[in-house]
Amino acid sequence: MSILEKINSSADIKSLSRAELHTLCDELRRFEIESIAKTGGHLASNLGAVELTVALHRVYDTTKDRLIFDVGHQSYTHKIITGRRDAFHTLRQRGGISGFPKPNEAPDDAFIAGHASTSVSAALGMAKARTLQGEDYDVAAVIGDGALTGGLAFEGLCNAAASGEPVVIILNDNNMSISKNVGGTAHLLQAMRMKPGYISFKKWFRSVSSRTRWIYEFVHRTKERLKSRILPSNVFSDLGLYYLGPVDGHDLEKLENAIRLARDLRRPVLLHVLTRKGKGCPYAEAHPDKYHGVGPFDPVTGELAPAGVCFSDKMGESLCRYAEKDARIVAITAAMAGGTGTECFEDRFPGRFFDVGIAEGHAVTMAGAMAKQGLLPVFAVYSSFLQRSLDMMIHDVALQSLHVVFCVDRAGLVGSDGETHQGLFDISYLGTVPGMTVLAPGSFEELHAMLGYAIGSVAGPVAVRYPRGGEGRYTDCNMSAETVLREGSDITILCYGTMVNVALEAADKLAMQGLSAEIVKLGILFPNKYEQCLASLKKTGRLLAAEEVCAAGCIGRRVLEACAENDLRLRAANLLNLGDGIIPHGTVAELRHDYGIDADAVVRCATELCGRDLTDT
Amino acid sequence: MSILEKINSSADIKSLSRAELHTLCDELRRFEIESIAKTGGHLASNLGAVELTVALHRVYDTTKDRLIFDVGHQSYTHKIITGRRDAFHTLRQRGGISGFPKPNEAPDDAFIAGHASTSVSAALGMAKARTLQGEDYDVAAVIGDGALTGGLAFEGLCNAAASGEPVVIILNDNNMSISKNVGGTAHLLQAMRMKPGYISFKKWFRSVSSRTRWIYEFVHRTKERLKSRILPSNVFSDLGLYYLGPVDGHDLEKLENAIRLARDLRRPVLLHVLTRKGKGCPYAEAHPDKYHGVGPFDPVTGELAPAGVCFSDKMGESLCRYAEKDARIVAITAAMAGGTGTECFEDRFPGRFFDVGIAEGHAVTMAGAMAKQGLLPVFAVYSSFLQRSLDMMIHDVALQSLHVVFCVDRAGLVGSDGETHQGLFDISYLGTVPGMTVLAPGSFEELHAMLGYAIGSVAGPVAVRYPRGGEGRYTDCNMSAETVLREGSDITILCYGTMVNVALEAADKLAMQGLSAEIVKLGILFPNKYEQCLASLKKTGRLLAAEEVCAAGCIGRRVLEACAENDLRLRAANLLNLGDGIIPHGTVAELRHDYGIDADAVVRCATELCGRDLTDT
Repeated sequence: MSILEKINSSADIKSLSRAELHTLCDELRRFEIESIAKTGGHLASNLGAVELTVALHRVYDTTKDRLIFDVGHQSYTHKIITGRRDAFHTLRQRGGISGFPKPNEAPDDAFIAGHASTSVSAALGMAKARTLQGEDYDVAAVIGDGALTGGLAFEGLCNAAASGEPVVIILNDNNMSISKNVGGTAHLLQAMRMKPGYISFKKWFRSVSSRTRWIYEFVHRTKERLKSRILPSNVFSDLGLYYLGPVDGHDLEKLENAIRLARDLRRPVLLHVLTRKGKGCPYAEAHPDKYHGVGPFDPVTGELAPAGVCFSDKMGESLCRYAEKDARIVAITAAMAGGTGTECFEDRFPGRFFDVGIAEGHAVTMAGAMAKQGLLPVFAVYSSFLQRSLDMMIHDVALQSLHVVFCVDRAGLVGSDGETHQGLFDISYLGTVPGMTVLAPGSFEELHAMLGYAIGSVAGPVAVRYPRGGEGRYTDCNMSAETVLREGSDITILCYGTMVNVALEAADKLAMQGLSAEIVKLGILFPNKYEQCLASLKKTGRLLAAEEVCAAGCIGRRVLEACAENDLRLRAANLLNLGDGIIPHGTVAELRHDYGIDADAVVRCATELCGRDLTDT
Repeated sequence: MSILEKINSSADIKSLSRAELHTLCDELRRFEIESIAKTGGHLASNLGAVELTVALHRVYDTTKDRLIFDVGHQSYTHKIITGRRDAFHTLRQRGGISGFPKPNEAPDDAFIAGHASTSVSAALGMAKARTLQGEDYDVAAVIGDGALTGGLAFEGLCNAAASGEPVVIILNDNNMSISKNVGGTAHLLQAMRMKPGYISFKKWFRSVSSRTRWIYEFVHRTKERLKSRILPSNVFSDLGLYYLGPVDGHDLEKLENAIRLARDLRRPVLLHVLTRKGKGCPYAEAHPDKYHGVGPFDPVTGELAPAGVCFSDKMGESLCRYAEKDARIVAITAAMAGGTGTECFEDRFPGRFFDVGIAEGHAVTMAGAMAKQGLLPVFAVYSSFLQRSLDMMIHDVALQSLHVVFCVDRAGLVGSDGETHQGLFDISYLGTVPGMTVLAPGSFEELHAMLGYAIGSVAGPVAVRYPRGGEGRYTDCNMSAETVLREGSDITILCYGTMVNVALEAADKLAMQGLSAEIVKLGILFPNKYEQCLASLKKTGRLLAAEEVCAAGCIGRRVLEACAENDLRLRAANLLNLGDGIIPHGTVAELRHDYGIDADAVVRCATELCGRDLTDT
């Protein structure tokens, strides 16, 4: 029986000997590589955090202490050792365990994660609650240096420092975001890693860290008095945090001692830990960006299953073609050059490519200013991450009607990343932005054409939204605001994007039942007077809007408003969409089925609408 | 003739002698105090930035150089000396000049402002555009230490530092946000102000700053080599910015030299300037928070015109009453204790009050974590500033269905602050947040009751939205989700919040025309099945929704959807609202009139709807 098989909680970890702990780390790595090779998931970040996570469980008890993983894609080890080892083969699959921390999955998961830079704010909130309520538990956050580039983390650090609350912030510094880390924080951490002051301090505190509390206190007071003379200050201590480190993130004993010291200081502490992404797995260590988030792969060689052509790659290619002809075009990414398909742009036009780090707000304000001065900025970003930029889109772009192009990737269901990453809110919040044009291509060709339209023919802010993955049976290119894709007489099915494939399949099935569906496909979601749609509704009298979006964002409501404005009284209408937009992980096909927007659901709904009306009149 | 009367541009400033410049500053202060005393406006921040602004115009030419004021409420001096002196008496009035920078007002205003922390990102975008396009102008940002607490500013600084772009960031450090500055940045700036290293460096660079370029270069190289030994590093230099200062912000000559040096370094520079809010005006210097943004006042004594009772004050009082009985309640503000009426909470419950600085994102994530641990956090925030927190509301609160109460102040038209501050988007973006309940009190009593309902009876995220200013003729308290305020037979007028006053006035006028309007007032905007409204519509057949909100957020669309779901076919419908939501400054009454949502507009629209139907059928 392996050691890993006996581990089901923090308590089990605490009972292990030094030697067993090292064996456990080896077993965890092997287990993770073999399991992720089958399910896909986040590989490199988890391998880099094995010792750190084990050391945290040596010090903390996650059934009561609150341990908050930033982003959360480094939480696999934590999940495996807190009772989810046997379920780990269901990772990121429908009904299986999530790839991110989820409090409803286990009490050991303190807070939801998925978006970056939230952990310090969350940890501070919990620490304040603990203190105000007079309870007795510890709170720690684990944040990567990538997530540290987000302004939210800075807000959290400033407030944590000023609070005086006992809270430990562990900086898991692997010198990477998903891609190579950028910007000022990279600069400062680089300096910190090298400064001899910290190395000597590290040796010094190590020498006392295993002794009793009064020694810590003495060390603290002495350090406070001396540090301005002996130690160069750094950004964290300047802000008022107690800085410890850097510590070797793969040395279990040092880590455990450092975490214990940090906890026992009873104040806001930043513990700087140096780790290596992909640690212990040669191919992941060599290419940590490639093995950040992966599909299935060969666990021995690391060979990845071939991925199909996707909208992201097509967007990157198209953007390069337009940029060749138009020198005003610049591309911006927020630490997602790989995911958004803009790596090719970076290769071809390095001087016109800007990776701003995990800083979606800055990206948009900067883009607005670039547009103001005559450039044509294109910001490629995931739908769920652009939620960070609503205010900047309104205030810094829309109020001045500036021409910024938003390439909204991962719009709609994203599948295995689950509820934090589903792109189901963009149509709603983009609709809040004054003067925003939203285009929704349903095929690769349409993506190319619509990106061209957004670049060349739209004034003011404009978004092109497209899903994760590739196209379906629909591969045509219709550039109109509205297109009647198929004529019919009984019901109008309204759709856009790749939901056009669902509509086509449903119309085929309805035809077999003797029902004639007209398909109206939107190219421009808004502004749009929906005239073709109204014409179709005048004919059929029945509306079925089939949308992969939350209810608040659905275009069906806008069409109903247009009906009212035009005194068009429908015989029946139903808006199929994803309700409140909280949808867990699973494949896109599974989720469309489970949440009632697949072809079968459209057929059922259409049949009901047609039947309802027949009995009513 | 005064000197001020001869100044209409940067060029005019450059032609003045030292003595004339000092006289000019005195004249500017007198002019601003006398003018703002009549119109109201931002007093203390402008008085603190007089010398800084004049010095900037000595160095820069704002007809081509791009000078970006963060927030922008310190831009009055800039406006006065760039051709808007004679229009200054129209400040913040309908058709008059804006209290914030507006590119459409003058080419000297480089970028829109109003929300905090955007200037560094905007300046960097402009500097990059300048360089990419091979143009020859300078870019500078002026940011206060308050705005520096926003994460967006940190994102901008990190990226500016890494860019290498020639751009000057001037930190206007008066040790204040609108109220007293808080958090880690306050800590670090405090340290920086005092460090002897900087004082000596200041003397040193002053001694060379008036000589030629090679001396700067030499100084720079020497400093680079020496500074890690001689000078303590600081957060700005750690990030990779070239730090200069601190400089006395009321010493014109020193300021001019420092700005010139910063510009000529041709790299990203942070120039630290120490100013005093309210400088030169005894009452404003003594109480800079009180004289931040003011209505009319006595220019000699500073005595303010009495302000009426407002929703903000009532909210603060109510919250205190609930907090007395429920120890779980904590209050959070983002540097707006005064504006949101929560100062009384701070006085009464200091340990349960958290001012996080200008950090709306952090406030929401922290609130989510507090709620997770059993506290009952109430975040009081302006509608337009909460736009910064959409992602945190979705990700850190709604996905876990956490009970966080949002007191959304300044919802609807705000009047003289204009388009950056209008609270016209909240219903739209709050509607994007899964499971969000939104309550809209129309009177002080309703505010108290609804806040109690939000605290005691709602699970999950809940917002109470209320306007700037006070209540109108409607002072009742109806706590239902829907209330039929007045019965009628010809048309249903849908309203909520203080638009209930508009509806009542319109119904009175319609009655005189012989038209019988039924008024349905919403207490809960959503979730709501609008059953009373549907019942009313079944009777009248005609809907007029009168809403002080952008079209994308209007509840009328939701009611039309409910009609469709319930097979209710209306005879006529019209949704009156504020369209795209871009509304300039003016009084609320003027703006309701100009944009067609006042009682007369409702009467016109109702008459038209009733008449249209009569001829149709």
